[in-house]
Amino acid sequence: MIVVLKPKVEVDKREHLIDWLKGMGVDVHVSVGEYQTILGLVGDTTRLDMDLIDSLDIVDSVKRITEPFKCCNRKFHPDDTVVQVGDVKIGGGYFCMIAGPCSVESEEQIITVAKAVKEAGADMLRGGAFKPRTSPYDFQGLKADGLELLKIARAETGLPIVTEIMSTADLPLFEDVDVLQVGARNMQNFDLLKEIGMTNKPVLLKRGLANSLKELLMSAEYIMASGNEQVILCERGIRTFSDYTRNTLDVSAVPMLHELSHLPVIVDPSHATGIARLVPPMAMAATAAGADGLIIEVHNDPPHALCDGAQSLRPEEYADLAEKIRSIRTALA
Amino acid sequence: MIVVLKPKVEVDKREHLIDWLKGMGVDVHVSVGEYQTILGLVGDTTRLDMDLIDSLDIVDSVKRITEPFKCCNRKFHPDDTVVQVGDVKIGGGYFCMIAGPCSVESEEQIITVAKAVKEAGADMLRGGAFKPRTSPYDFQGLKADGLELLKIARAETGLPIVTEIMSTADLPLFEDVDVLQVGARNMQNFDLLKEIGMTNKPVLLKRGLANSLKELLMSAEYIMASGNEQVILCERGIRTFSDYTRNTLDVSAVPMLHELSHLPVIVDPSHATGIARLVPPMAMAATAAGADGLIIEVHNDPPHALCDGAQSLRPEEYADLAEKIRSIRTALA
Amino acid sequence: MIVVLKPKVEVDKREHLIDWLKGMGVDVHVSVGEYQTILGLVGDTTRLDMDLIDSLDIVDSVKRITEPFKCCNRKFHPDDTVVQVGDVKIGGGYFCMIAGPCSVESEEQIITVAKAVKEAGADMLRGGAFKPRTSPYDFQGLKADGLELLKIARAETGLPIVTEIMSTADLPLFEDVDVLQVGARNMQNFDLLKEIGMTNKPVLLKRGLANSLKELLMSAEYIMASGNEQVILCERGIRTFSDYTRNTLDVSAVPMLHELSHLPVIVDPSHATGIARLVPPMAMAATAAGADGLIIEVHNDPPHALCDGAQSLRPEEYADLAEKIRSIRTALA
Amino acid sequence: MIVVLKPKVEVDKREHLIDWLKGMGVDVHVSVGEYQTILGLVGDTTRLDMDLIDSLDIVDSVKRITEPFKCCNRKFHPDDTVVQVGDVKIGGGYFCMIAGPCSVESEEQIITVAKAVKEAGADMLRGGAFKPRTSPYDFQGLKADGLELLKIARAETGLPIVTEIMSTADLPLFEDVDVLQVGARNMQNFDLLKEIGMTNKPVLLKRGLANSLKELLMSAEYIMASGNEQVILCERGIRTFSDYTRNTLDVSAVPMLHELSHLPVIVDPSHATGIARLVPPMAMAATAAGADGLIIEVHNDPPHALCDGAQSLRPEEYADLAEKIRSIRTALA
Repeated sequence: MIVVLKPKVEVDKREHLIDWLKGMGVDVHVSVGEYQTILGLVGDTTRLDMDLIDSLDIVDSVKRITEPFKCCNRKFHPDDTVVQVGDVKIGGGYFCMIAGPCSVESEEQIITVAKAVKEAGADMLRGGAFKPRTSPYDFQGLKADGLELLKIARAETGLPIVTEIMSTADLPLFEDVDVLQVGARNMQNFDLLKEIGMTNKPVLLKRGLANSLKELLMSAEYIMASGNEQVILCERGIRTFSDYTRNTLDVSAVPMLHELSHLPVIVDPSHATGIARLVPPMAMAATAAGADGLIIEVHNDPPHALCDGAQSLRPEEYADLAEKIRSIRTALA
Repeated sequence: MIVVLKPKVEVDKREHLIDWLKGMGVDVHVSVGEYQTILGLVGDTTRLDMDLIDSLDIVDSVKRITEPFKCCNRKFHPDDTVVQVGDVKIGGGYFCMIAGPCSVESEEQIITVAKAVKEAGADMLRGGAFKPRTSPYDFQGLKADGLELLKIARAETGLPIVTEIMSTADLPLFEDVDVLQVGARNMQNFDLLKEIGMTNKPVLLKRGLANSLKELLMSAEYIMASGNEQVILCERGIRTFSDYTRNTLDVSAVPMLHELSHLPVIVDPSHATGIARLVPPMAMAATAAGADGLIIEVHNDPPHALCDGAQSLRPEEYADLAEKIRSIRTALA
Repeated sequence: MIVVLKPKVEVDKREHLIDWLKGMGVDVHVSVGEYQTILGLVGDTTRLDMDLIDSLDIVDSVKRITEPFKCCNRKFHPDDTVVQVGDVKIGGGYFCMIAGPCSVESEEQIITVAKAVKEAGADMLRGGAFKPRTSPYDFQGLKADGLELLKIARAETGLPIVTEIMSTADLPLFEDVDVLQVGARNMQNFDLLKEIGMTNKPVLLKRGLANSLKELLMSAEYIMASGNEQVILCERGIRTFSDYTRNTLDVSAVPMLHELSHLPVIVDPSHATGIARLVPPMAMAATAAGADGLIIEVHNDPPHALCDGAQSLRPEEYADLAEKIRSIRTALA
Repeated sequence: MIVVLKPKVEVDKREHLIDWLKGMGVDVHVSVGEYQTILGLVGDTTRLDMDLIDSLDIVDSVKRITEPFKCCNRKFHPDDTVVQVGDVKIGGGYFCMIAGPCSVESEEQIITVAKAVKEAGADMLRGGAFKPRTSPYDFQGLKADGLELLKIARAETGLPIVTEIMSTADLPLFEDVDVLQVGARNMQNFDLLKEIGMTNKPVLLKRGLANSLKELLMSAEYIMASGNEQVILCERGIRTFSDYTRNTLDVSAVPMLHELSHLPVIVDPSHATGIARLVPPMAMAATAAGADGLIIEVHNDPPHALCDGAQSLRPEEYADLAEKIRSIRTALA
């Protein structure tokens, strides 16, 4: 950590600060310049509060040099993490296609979609049973019944299932789910992250709508620091001024997260755009940018979907897209 | 709801849509223009999914006319709601000053600050016991012990206490708290909102960093639809490109929320700016814009605060500010 | 245009508005609902000011149905526009690679880079002679001398040249330039757009940092309405809260602009990210999303570039990337 | 400037960089830590390109300590600048009320409004003659004729006139205007800034929709570095995800700009909100936050305004507001 003092700081104030910092257990290297004095703090600075130091009268600015994330930091773990779900692998060169409806609606629906996406080459099945909805008056999902229907679809197709958990109270119901999804709105629900960190299940962690990459990694850190290292990061669009799409897919998050972390990174073009006809080009873009997988909404009858029909592909559209994704992967291999 | 059809839609497709809409229980008024046909839907359109209709081949755009929020909507409840906490009132002309440290740290600290802010004219005491922190390695609050210290400070000063709840699992611990605070990161933790809606405690609901006013109102709606109508809305800054302050305080949210809803609206200039010296001007701005109250961080020793010291006022600074706030209130009365 | 009146509007006020609208030359279809009355305006509504109507006491909301852009609107011109620059074509299936240094620095530099990018397969040469810089103390470009050096590089390689124009006063100097570039900061410098619209040169129009797609198209409209239809749109990143990259490349703008307009759409990954190592993945993403070309910064000696060295590729890196771009194009053909 | 090297940098590469930096004319203080080496650069670092240094292989990060703005920097000019326009003063305790219509439409209109706002206490008259409009099909202003009408209104009322200039080509027409306004869209039209810097007229410089405070100050620097130090800064709202108001007024820019610069800071609540009924609360907020003045749109007949009628106050509303503003100013004196 670097602390830049204000010009013309009195010597005793400076020494007082240096003593205090040493008392916090860090070494201090002092560099006195003509106009400014700079303190270089070495050692374990994770316990120092930057805001606090920045607020002192004699301090001009503070800069942290070491990122505060450790478990997920590529610096300390140079090799890619490969998350394994049954026979399916994600990361480190393994590309994973996750697909399914926004919401589980009925046995017929989920089985129909599961078979169709498997046929098209999907590796896992997604489907919402517990649905976070902006309005209390909107369909909130089939809940426990939805989870049972997902398991039936898994039995029929062999596809592992991914589904969102919204509350620690529901954890027992997710015992037999393959991948726990943490949604964008819960990315900083820290109690949920800690509890999930105490399970041994792979976690699909979505970036919040207004969260920086560092905050996403700190949330992964909550899960990993609790003992669960099987985390898949997911970019799903951020909130910007732009109003043609629901959110703005930040494709550059893919290579940037790969640089910062060893965890696999997948992309959700369905929620990012909210518009079915933009899903294929954005899925292809994410693939070309190096994503480790895609999570895409597919519905057998989008106009009658109970949720987010506008962004769901039909099975035949998904099959076309999967073919193109494979072509890009081959071209870039 | 207005549905605008694409140009040159075939008559039978149009009739098919109209039949389907009528089957959903709404009346449909058709207005055929030279280039475009417009359907005006009248009746209970809350069950219609705009996205679904918007996704149909023959539909150009859909516009909802009635806001989907009801309980908190001023249209259906023209008078201001006054939330009462013991003898303290907020809203409808009653202005409420809430102050205290970011985190409860010790008995001495919380009592010192409580007495100081009471002396300065504060009506309620704030203090974090359960702290949402971006990093799992940062101080997470004194938790249950912190709640006990708040109660001691209340006993000493008579000030009602406001403190954040992060998880439904903690609800029993908050039995004797006066106002439950829902933080910005949990604004769309819908399970938490529903559970809090089943208590009879006043709720201070903070706007999320990237949430629209409509989303804030829909979250208030979750609480109110569960039976608890004592909701106080709080603007605390939004995330923008601007990087001089931690967040950008959206002062215009105050008059806008007053127009849309009958609930009281308060402002948190401390978290919005993250800089103590900007707290007074922004507190004054919020007051002049018509806020029903202010929640401000005050610490007896900001440089040694365990959390957010950089944005905390000293007691004497708070007393100065409170005096100015009263002057503005008097000037505008 | 749709005008939704407030509930319970008095009949004579409503009739007064309808008369006024008819006086403005549009037909009005009235649809009286149980709660609300809707006016559908048909005819030439381009002269009606939405804001004005929206401000009337009796009006609840106004919605424009027809987009206000005409010349660049795909609805009125379904076929892709192909912009031709010498033998080079852009749009309608023709993909164009534009490359070169941020700034023209010397004859040796521009010729070295021009030869290298031509060798790698580039179709046009870019290079800044007039440089828009945030600081008046930063290098402002070689100006007229820089334009001469670009022409020399063109003579050496045969590559057409693209360079930015910042002021109408400089137009005579650009007589012999092949493509005029309008930078992001000048996207709404309407006098510049109008003047350029009166030339017969192809224009590369960059999206402003905080401009919507509609505003970009309206700026294209300024050029086209003045008589020049040879406009190439360029996405170059928008300003968001995200701070890891300089800007956030909005890849979804590519398919969305193709849907709204017949003009070619290219992408600038260099300015969008500001980080050389992110340029290849984002260039590939843009290609996979359907861009009609790429404009990329290449410098023979990035650490000694006078401007934006941090985002420039070395010639060999550019050659590698160009190869990958061709692979993706082939895979998707 | 602080340069942080990557861990384990080879000694000869480090020495090479240090030599190069010294060759650029700065002193280098080296601080070798256990994990990281830090270079403190002292001297005139304005000519060093941070991006370039940041791009070097061995560099982890670079931080500029001294702001790159000088003329407008409060550090080098602690006293408030007072801009004088005839008898009117702005800044340093002098508060200035500027008001008038968005566009000058007719002699009768501008004189009516000018008399009304003078009566209400306004100090200067605003009115657009050259109008920047998103659409080429919208009313573009009366241009030179509009300037003449403003001068007539000035002759009638004695109010100095403020009006926007969009192009250097129009400068001769503005010879007899009192204050030149640079609009948000032209905040980084650097050629315009330089030309205006060569006049001796006070300049009202509006912040761009997506520009940081530093960029606003750098644009002021362009004007001042050209010799004209009479610059008034104007906050007029930034573009965010929030969609209830046209833009989000960043009230915190007022105290922050006062801290960074000695120039006067005024606020435009009309363009920031785009909604007349939000203008009074936001004008009061800006005043309470310490603004040096307000620029507000007033129209004698808002529903028939040719531009931005929705955000204009009627003269009697403006008179009410002016009264409240004076009350707040008195309360805070």
